Amino acid sequence: MTHSPERTAIADYWSTAICNIAPSRIAFRGYPIEQLIGAVSFPAMIWLMLRGDLPTPAQEALLEAALVASVDHGPHAPSIAIARMSVSCGLPLNGAMASALNALDDVHGGAGEQAVELYDDVLARADAGLALDDAAAAAIDAFIVAKGAYLPGFGHRFHPVDPRSGRLLDLVENARSEGAVSGSYAEAARAIERVLHCRKGKLIPMNIDGASAVIYGELGFAAPLARGIFCLSRAVGILAHAWEQTGRKERNKGPIPRSFAYGYTGVATRDVPQP
Amino acid sequence: MTHSPERTAIADYWSTAICNIAPSRIAFRGYPIEQLIGAVSFPAMIWLMLRGDLPTPAQEALLEAALVASVDHGPHAPSIAIARMSVSCGLPLNGAMASALNALDDVHGGAGEQAVELYDDVLARADAGLALDDAAAAAIDAFIVAKGAYLPGFGHRFHPVDPRSGRLLDLVENARSEGAVSGSYAEAARAIERVLHCRKGKLIPMNIDGASAVIYGELGFAAPLARGIFCLSRAVGILAHAWEQTGRKERNKGPIPRSFAYGYTGVATRDVPQP
Amino acid sequence: MTHSPERTAIADYWSTAICNIAPSRIAFRGYPIEQLIGAVSFPAMIWLMLRGDLPTPAQEALLEAALVASVDHGPHAPSIAIARMSVSCGLPLNGAMASALNALDDVHGGAGEQAVELYDDVLARADAGLALDDAAAAAIDAFIVAKGAYLPGFGHRFHPVDPRSGRLLDLVENARSEGAVSGSYAEAARAIERVLHCRKGKLIPMNIDGASAVIYGELGFAAPLARGIFCLSRAVGILAHAWEQTGRKERNKGPIPRSFAYGYTGVATRDVPQP
Amino acid sequence: MTHSPERTAIADYWSTAICNIAPSRIAFRGYPIEQLIGAVSFPAMIWLMLRGDLPTPAQEALLEAALVASVDHGPHAPSIAIARMSVSCGLPLNGAMASALNALDDVHGGAGEQAVELYDDVLARADAGLALDDAAAAAIDAFIVAKGAYLPGFGHRFHPVDPRSGRLLDLVENARSEGAVSGSYAEAARAIERVLHCRKGKLIPMNIDGASAVIYGELGFAAPLARGIFCLSRAVGILAHAWEQTGRKERNKGPIPRSFAYGYTGVATRDVPQP
Repeated sequence: MTHSPERTAIADYWSTAICNIAPSRIAFRGYPIEQLIGAVSFPAMIWLMLRGDLPTPAQEALLEAALVASVDHGPHAPSIAIARMSVSCGLPLNGAMASALNALDDVHGGAGEQAVELYDDVLARADAGLALDDAAAAAIDAFIVAKGAYLPGFGHRFHPVDPRSGRLLDLVENARSEGAVSGSYAEAARAIERVLHCRKGKLIPMNIDGASAVIYGELGFAAPLARGIFCLSRAVGILAHAWEQTGRKERNKGPIPRSFAYGYTGVATRDVPQP
Repeated sequence: MTHSPERTAIADYWSTAICNIAPSRIAFRGYPIEQLIGAVSFPAMIWLMLRGDLPTPAQEALLEAALVASVDHGPHAPSIAIARMSVSCGLPLNGAMASALNALDDVHGGAGEQAVELYDDVLARADAGLALDDAAAAAIDAFIVAKGAYLPGFGHRFHPVDPRSGRLLDLVENARSEGAVSGSYAEAARAIERVLHCRKGKLIPMNIDGASAVIYGELGFAAPLARGIFCLSRAVGILAHAWEQTGRKERNKGPIPRSFAYGYTGVATRDVPQP
Repeated sequence: MTHSPERTAIADYWSTAICNIAPSRIAFRGYPIEQLIGAVSFPAMIWLMLRGDLPTPAQEALLEAALVASVDHGPHAPSIAIARMSVSCGLPLNGAMASALNALDDVHGGAGEQAVELYDDVLARADAGLALDDAAAAAIDAFIVAKGAYLPGFGHRFHPVDPRSGRLLDLVENARSEGAVSGSYAEAARAIERVLHCRKGKLIPMNIDGASAVIYGELGFAAPLARGIFCLSRAVGILAHAWEQTGRKERNKGPIPRSFAYGYTGVATRDVPQP
Repeated sequence: MTHSPERTAIADYWSTAICNIAPSRIAFRGYPIEQLIGAVSFPAMIWLMLRGDLPTPAQEALLEAALVASVDHGPHAPSIAIARMSVSCGLPLNGAMASALNALDDVHGGAGEQAVELYDDVLARADAGLALDDAAAAAIDAFIVAKGAYLPGFGHRFHPVDPRSGRLLDLVENARSEGAVSGSYAEAARAIERVLHCRKGKLIPMNIDGASAVIYGELGFAAPLARGIFCLSRAVGILAHAWEQTGRKERNKGPIPRSFAYGYTGVATRDVPQP
């Protein structure tokens, strides 16, 4: 079909390879939506949208495990607390989810992404000839120099052992033994765990971010998508808590009960200077 | 364990029935997370978080179909456009998703919720003794009086026939024939379609919002969760488009190419009055 | 200049009467920006953008008083708490402001808007012939029927007397005595206060929302702009708290200290059913 | 007053030096709010909240000029477009402002902050003994190495000369000649302009971000507050456009008219593989 110059310019400006929509026809990555519905799983659909084609069953199962594992970590987590507070301010569920997802930034939602980057660095250094543990040590050092003291993916302020990590790593090992994934990201993560153990004199076990990053890396997702997929997963917990709070009908719920004082640490009361 | 009064007060203020988290233990709705990972599907996990227990396979399949069906409708949709523009402004994926979900408000993301409310009203009127088509006509009239001219769930400005609706309704019909759902919401929706056909002199077919609302209603979800689950689904398309735009490295992308003028309809240029 | 059809269509689609921008020229409501800078106050610029022309000095002073009065109400307020928590999650200042403003919805940020609507209703009923206190009583009744038990603008859960209200109302009275405003919104608000006093047997004094709504009404702002201008004002406190929190370098700050337990009210731990 | 340990812990966790609120008493930075209302300007209140005390008249005037200068740059700007689109999706004004401010991230709202950092670097190098133009050249080089090719604050894709910059710089020069500011940030910015002119063979004039960053630097604001104050200013334009769009009653407005096609660049339509 022909376009006027302006129409073409807009088409280019807003072009996409994801969906092709015409009157009464909708296709994603080439597949008609009416064929996808009822035939592919939700995780397979996520994969299709992000990767351009459907996953193998083993890929789908690993992605599904990661999606299930990360849905929630309770109202101590700022994102969940923000969702609950937002509902009490009058926001509908989509608005509460928006403010909560917004909080999944570098510190709260970025650990998985950073862990994939860390593993990528370990593997690149190993590819360049370093022994794996030396590559891990060098990657750790480089990360801490660049980003500061918090190494993503290892240790947890609350859980001595994170009950999600071992289960996820078992599933990766099963997939590796069946040839579905290479296992290289799991090895990189284990190498980091060994180096940390050696340096700290105690085990700093892989946490949910470190373990799910192993899965994302094994599945070939770019690091930023570790954050993006985590958002899809945590959105479930955010929605559940926002919905529970909706049923409470509390109005304008702050972080602490209204009867509690917060601390004031500023100057004493004074008069505004007269002009 | 014992609490001081203050500690108890906070515990109550932030109490939840969704997750129970203690050092090295995480359970959702009572189920340990390490048992859930690898054993339940992502849609089943969504159901568990929102409903308090696991779904039957038939319930899970219908929810999964609705989740797959609604992931995206292209950059013409404001939410997708906002996600793409936000990335070009420097936002990470979680921030782009936040602003996009925020747009799924009453007009853009609320049609499914409103359709469930509409079906609920049809069924309540039928329960009260009206014939189904009379109940549908009365519910349509009440909705239009209360909310205005746009009846949610029927007709589409772009698709003469929405390719997603028929497929979803077929799956509902299969589930009904197997006794997995009652079929009452599908009947309510069909009654609305008949009344509209009769009134308008032409078929105003059920769209994706109307068809997925049938599923949510059949599955027993409260109306606001139709919006919430739609957000979980559309978040996938939002993420995919945000990620595609991330790869483009365009900076500060507005809605139309920079070379295009927008219209100015205000007063002519004038001088600021001198004091 | 001539347009192709497509270009014209876009110009119309995105037309505005607010700003007229051409290479090296920027005008707002007709006034060149280089004339406005240094010549008009920030409140006058806000008025110009929202109303289409510059305010009188008396109008400007009242708007400025309302903007100053509402900047903050401490970390007990969900919006401020969300801003502080968001910063601790890694969000930049603009992102923290976004999530905080998002919380200024119907319950948390909508009281001023609702109070203007309430006063509008009182005045409309008085214009239709009711005595002012009868009009106020009827408007109160209508509001409570339509919106529920919370009457916006009167009473405060924390302040027996709101120190901001009296000062704002004094300024309105001064402006009225100088003929700068009509005083009708102040009279409507006072009538509501009288009716409530009579009904409840005690004074339910006007709060900041009620008093600033008097100003917005006197100045001729449409009700939704009471919320919008409140957002401009509260954005200042949100920014100040976000910035204070930025200096603290706390990571991932939840609503309560990590060592505190929150309450779990759900089912006891149980096993996932085997397939 | 005495606290239990838990209450104290919370007070500390949520302590602030900004506001001191007790029943019927509200003070900001020590000043009672009833004294501030009607006595200090809105820009002075912004300064007080961010800096801890009231500004001098000269400081207040410069901050006010920067606030007035940056309110809007039309619907081509993604933030303004997002605000307009969000309203059409059903969002109230606060929600539209939230999504728009969220877009003022590094690329769209961060140029002023980056320009302050750049000037800080120039001045630090000059303090360390370099001649000013050598310091500017070294700071430019360091910025480009660290952040990429876009130097913040200089040049504009649309305005050959930015009409806001010259006016703002004149006000800074006036303030310098009266001894109100040191003029060092203006000198640093002029040195960058000279170096760029020399390197590029043509003038790359200071834009609004560069000129307002001069003001923020002269006034002693930390670099991130350049972004924060810009958000306060641009929030005005965002609100004005959101309000204009509210009056249009358009539903679900996408970036381009519905009749326009966007470009599809993906794979041709294909069948979903059969299991």
